Amino acid sequence: MINANARAVFGPEGPFELTTIERRDLMPHDVLIEIKYAGICHSDIHTARGDWGPVQYPLVPGHEIAGIVSQVGSEVVKYNVGDRVGVGCMVESCGECESCRRGEEQYCLHGHTGTYAAIDRYGQYTQGGYSTHIVVTEDFVVRIPDGIDLDVAAPLLCAGITTYSPLRHWGAAPGRKIAVVGLGGLGHMAVKLAHAMGTEVTVLSQTLKKKEDGLKLGADYYYATSDPETFNKLAGMFDLIVNTVSAKIDLNAYLSLLAVDGTLVNVGAPPEALPVQVFSLIPHRRSFAGSAIGGIQETQEMLDFCAEHQITPEIEVISADQIDEAWERVLASNVRYRFVIDISTMGNK
Amino acid sequence: MINANARAVFGPEGPFELTTIERRDLMPHDVLIEIKYAGICHSDIHTARGDWGPVQYPLVPGHEIAGIVSQVGSEVVKYNVGDRVGVGCMVESCGECESCRRGEEQYCLHGHTGTYAAIDRYGQYTQGGYSTHIVVTEDFVVRIPDGIDLDVAAPLLCAGITTYSPLRHWGAAPGRKIAVVGLGGLGHMAVKLAHAMGTEVTVLSQTLKKKEDGLKLGADYYYATSDPETFNKLAGMFDLIVNTVSAKIDLNAYLSLLAVDGTLVNVGAPPEALPVQVFSLIPHRRSFAGSAIGGIQETQEMLDFCAEHQITPEIEVISADQIDEAWERVLASNVRYRFVIDISTMGNK
Repeated sequence: MINANARAVFGPEGPFELTTIERRDLMPHDVLIEIKYAGICHSDIHTARGDWGPVQYPLVPGHEIAGIVSQVGSEVVKYNVGDRVGVGCMVESCGECESCRRGEEQYCLHGHTGTYAAIDRYGQYTQGGYSTHIVVTEDFVVRIPDGIDLDVAAPLLCAGITTYSPLRHWGAAPGRKIAVVGLGGLGHMAVKLAHAMGTEVTVLSQTLKKKEDGLKLGADYYYATSDPETFNKLAGMFDLIVNTVSAKIDLNAYLSLLAVDGTLVNVGAPPEALPVQVFSLIPHRRSFAGSAIGGIQETQEMLDFCAEHQITPEIEVISADQIDEAWERVLASNVRYRFVIDISTMGNK
Repeated sequence: MINANARAVFGPEGPFELTTIERRDLMPHDVLIEIKYAGICHSDIHTARGDWGPVQYPLVPGHEIAGIVSQVGSEVVKYNVGDRVGVGCMVESCGECESCRRGEEQYCLHGHTGTYAAIDRYGQYTQGGYSTHIVVTEDFVVRIPDGIDLDVAAPLLCAGITTYSPLRHWGAAPGRKIAVVGLGGLGHMAVKLAHAMGTEVTVLSQTLKKKEDGLKLGADYYYATSDPETFNKLAGMFDLIVNTVSAKIDLNAYLSLLAVDGTLVNVGAPPEALPVQVFSLIPHRRSFAGSAIGGIQETQEMLDFCAEHQITPEIEVISADQIDEAWERVLASNVRYRFVIDISTMGNK
């Protein structure tokens, strides 16, 4: 067993405490990663607090992981010690189902294994990236291109791929009009990516508070959804709307902004059901869809795309002692736009 | 003006009365059709009763029209007197927007003109097919192939195209698994069409009452949705679900039956909103969509497909005096599977 220092919650209320966790000894295809940075995702909070179902404690969250390979298993072929690598939301999948064979492990028909709060094939409860080391099979490790620093690379592993994948899947390209609902961790990445893909990007945010930011990030237009006029003005406008908001919104109002054959895709998941008027869909053959992260191959493609287009998230680096405070600020939407933990500040138990 | 005998309701409660309506004199591109048969669609009832908004009375419903060309305008090029033709749910559209140019007049960005209960470009209130004659611009007339009798042709103009179009749009083809929810006028056409397209067809109906019928129509499997086991057994099974039911159903249960990238498309429109759990969509990148009839070119393609595959609806021919009774039976789901009015029984005012 390999010991790692980590920050864990010991119950739904927290707070974080420094602790030691065990990582498995390397199997032939495993890679040991010395974690340098870990992003903080809203899902970390939902999961740790049990909002999405019961979890075991202590729990170490974190699925936006960037670090350096420090050891490789006997049969590892893809990585060498010293390589700059990342791990996202999954660490395993069955590898055999139709989805896995298609390289879409996130839709593994047997369920992929989450980076934390899941049981892996060895029967171990997975623990995430708020820690100094992690052991992951090489197939679920991606390479971080040289042009991207490790701190800004971390959020790409969830916020980046979660928005890149639906943009690609629903054909974001020059000539297409894309709206991004919400300008948070995911939303600001969606804006940057959609802009780099050559689309016309509109941000739909509750207020115009972040308008200046939005335009700097690459948005062509920025509208306040608190203004009812927005919905009249933009009716039937968008080929694709990426909804990054996890709260309950008036979905039918947003569906009315879609063009014929347009799709509104949710990447955020509010716990409540959203009422859909079928008449919002039928007369324009609109769709309401959902999308989850992306496959490993697509995650690598996204990283390479970000390196090529010099796209990185806006981050605020914090020390391990500041995680509790950072979570409170995430819940209050008071972050521009992603917290990243500097793992060198982890401490030693 | 051309006088036509018709059956109209004079208020939301009915009943139908024999009356005379005026059809416009033929414009250069107009075709006068002597109507032989008109199908009864559930939408006729919703519209006439004001369920979908206020309408004018007297109102002559009917958008499943089959007949013979009896006169043509001076510049008509597509049809000759004596041709067997049909008219569906639309009689006009702008002809210039992106949708119209793509041949998808049903999604005309300026709104297509309904065959009844709409204002046409001449400022006239349109009246439908429960009548002896109709005047329609040739671009909104389709040819009924010789292999299809006029009585069974009528329902193809709405029930046929409404199910054909989404099947084509979402790729019904050999190797694909399709479910049809509800075995009524639309549902039974969906089964026949999906079967002819080479897909594996499953009917999902409240009970097994019509199972024998369903299998005869071309279904491979037939399940009762009143049995909760159905939803466990068929989880993640279908590439496409065509929901023909206009009542409120537990959408999330049906969404759980979709495979990765599967779509549930509503062609029926319940007045109430349907609550959608986003978690029903995200983990399999599922979509919930709506679809409206089909374009004129696609309607012709559907008719030709039906002639080639010898597909016609199951109908019960009634006389014009039986419309009130037929409507009651439609509302009670007591028809297998479509009523068609024999217009020769219209009578003379």
